[in-house]
Amino acid sequence: MPELRQDLVTQAWVAVATERGRRPHDFAAVAESVPAVGTSCPFCEGNEHMTPPEVMAYRAPGSAANGPGWQLRVVSNLYPAFGPAEGNSEAYRVGLYTAMNGLGLHEVLINSPRHAEDLGLAPIEAVERVVRGYIDRYRAHEQHAAVKYTLIIVNHGRAAGASREHPHAQLFGIPLVPPVVEAEIRGVERYRRANEGRCPYCDIIDYEMGQGERIVYANDGFVVMAPFASRVPFECLILPRRHDGRFERMSPGEQRQFAEALRDSLGRLRRGLSNPPYNFFIHTAPHGRQGGQGYHWHLEVLPKLSIAAGFELGSGIMIDTVTPEQAAAFLRGVADQA
Amino acid sequence: MPELRQDLVTQAWVAVATERGRRPHDFAAVAESVPAVGTSCPFCEGNEHMTPPEVMAYRAPGSAANGPGWQLRVVSNLYPAFGPAEGNSEAYRVGLYTAMNGLGLHEVLINSPRHAEDLGLAPIEAVERVVRGYIDRYRAHEQHAAVKYTLIIVNHGRAAGASREHPHAQLFGIPLVPPVVEAEIRGVERYRRANEGRCPYCDIIDYEMGQGERIVYANDGFVVMAPFASRVPFECLILPRRHDGRFERMSPGEQRQFAEALRDSLGRLRRGLSNPPYNFFIHTAPHGRQGGQGYHWHLEVLPKLSIAAGFELGSGIMIDTVTPEQAAAFLRGVADQA
Repeated sequence: MPELRQDLVTQAWVAVATERGRRPHDFAAVAESVPAVGTSCPFCEGNEHMTPPEVMAYRAPGSAANGPGWQLRVVSNLYPAFGPAEGNSEAYRVGLYTAMNGLGLHEVLINSPRHAEDLGLAPIEAVERVVRGYIDRYRAHEQHAAVKYTLIIVNHGRAAGASREHPHAQLFGIPLVPPVVEAEIRGVERYRRANEGRCPYCDIIDYEMGQGERIVYANDGFVVMAPFASRVPFECLILPRRHDGRFERMSPGEQRQFAEALRDSLGRLRRGLSNPPYNFFIHTAPHGRQGGQGYHWHLEVLPKLSIAAGFELGSGIMIDTVTPEQAAAFLRGVADQA
Repeated sequence: MPELRQDLVTQAWVAVATERGRRPHDFAAVAESVPAVGTSCPFCEGNEHMTPPEVMAYRAPGSAANGPGWQLRVVSNLYPAFGPAEGNSEAYRVGLYTAMNGLGLHEVLINSPRHAEDLGLAPIEAVERVVRGYIDRYRAHEQHAAVKYTLIIVNHGRAAGASREHPHAQLFGIPLVPPVVEAEIRGVERYRRANEGRCPYCDIIDYEMGQGERIVYANDGFVVMAPFASRVPFECLILPRRHDGRFERMSPGEQRQFAEALRDSLGRLRRGLSNPPYNFFIHTAPHGRQGGQGYHWHLEVLPKLSIAAGFELGSGIMIDTVTPEQAAAFLRGVADQA
């Protein structure tokens, strides 16, 4: 029988219905992601003139801005969803409704000059560098009064919304705290009130490490698991063992451990599921908010192997056709990187 | 500059960012929806043995159940996300977590025996029959104590999650009220408290009919508009002019007007945007709940022309790259059905 499962923090329900995964389709399969031939990639070394000027880069000593010689590069998004960072941030009326200017920053962090250096395959130093890039830009966003939150996301593969194949992240500095993050913060507070002040994410780590069946990977600093109420097949949650509301406070040692957990998870997905499309994002406490320490930052990976259709959109309840226990066992069984 | 817009009822924010619609892709385009050749459609007349037995059908007098001679047919879903309808409905503990049995009904309503009779093209009597079918099955679901809500949805096209091309709806009778509907009900109550008891949907109809720029279509019973805070390009909201919390209370005359509004909207999308994939769903008051009259039922159509990616999933804020005003003007300009 299908089972409804509730997320411990957000109280959102998901339906785990494995029967649903067996249904046939009368549409022919189409290739998922077809890199176009002969296009010139603006994120590759030597093509720096094809992007807006860099706002940050890690470069070889003596190399000039906006030319070759970099290891990691951050530019403004040519097609911004938010910006500029300065202006009137007051909400205003539009007849019956409320609106506000979409102030903020929208940046692209190019992981490396190498077009094919996937995060799941890259040398650990390269992944560490990307993590350091996230933290450095996050702290830069903090300086803008209009930026109330910075969401760091990765879209991998066309079906997951990527428009460029070259590995990169996007940083969205936005003028409000995202409702999904607000819901998690409220959920943490509710859980603490009901459980003698304990953090639900810390309790999840203790419980899942004791159980083991939903654990995918663990090192001294981080635990990767298939959440009990996974919304999609092979969802992965990366949690720091040390309670902290803010990802940007990771020590250099923790950054290395986080890079290892991230590379391991993405590598298992890639090798086990033939390079599936996925989205990931980091949830951390809002910029400068008091009480951010109550929260517990984390990274969520959502492979895009199914479509959120009419039921999911109209109800807010996701249907997951692979049990998290099966997903975790499968991912644990994927051979380590050769 | 991008604009953030707030939904009057749910208070959800969307970002309207038309620049974002101009970005190029370095993946080659792939065909959206490729009907497989040579497959036999279980929803076509003559293939009734390929589905589970019918739970309801409109049939020619004298025709036998589960054979030809029907105009509309409802069967259980072979790959159910919910069911059966009877059993233990108590939530239970799974270690740290909460779960419940996925009790309910999951049905397929086959619109007509004709494989190519799209709702946007069908004779009005056929669309009316589909509406009557929704209402009849909705009332049947009401009889099951375990079914707290029935969500009626349509997935059109592979990219919108359809696994079958033959026009059909799915009815999900589920053991909880969907969080999206709960949020709308709370939003209506909040608006009423702040606005002398008025219904926000009634206010939206008055305001938008006065303004005109977001109206797509209107008849005596129904108004179709691009919502001020549209989440996706060409989103359409079909609202009954007569305030009522429950769609199943439509009079026969209103059912006809609703069928006209629905066919007109889907037809405009089909003719104007080359038969795009879309999802639609009906939001009505929960079965048997006191106070359902405060709500205002409606139908939402969400074309699937973009991908909800890392930003949308991680924030809960949708980015819409076509303004609702442009979308409505475009859809108004689509020529009437030939």
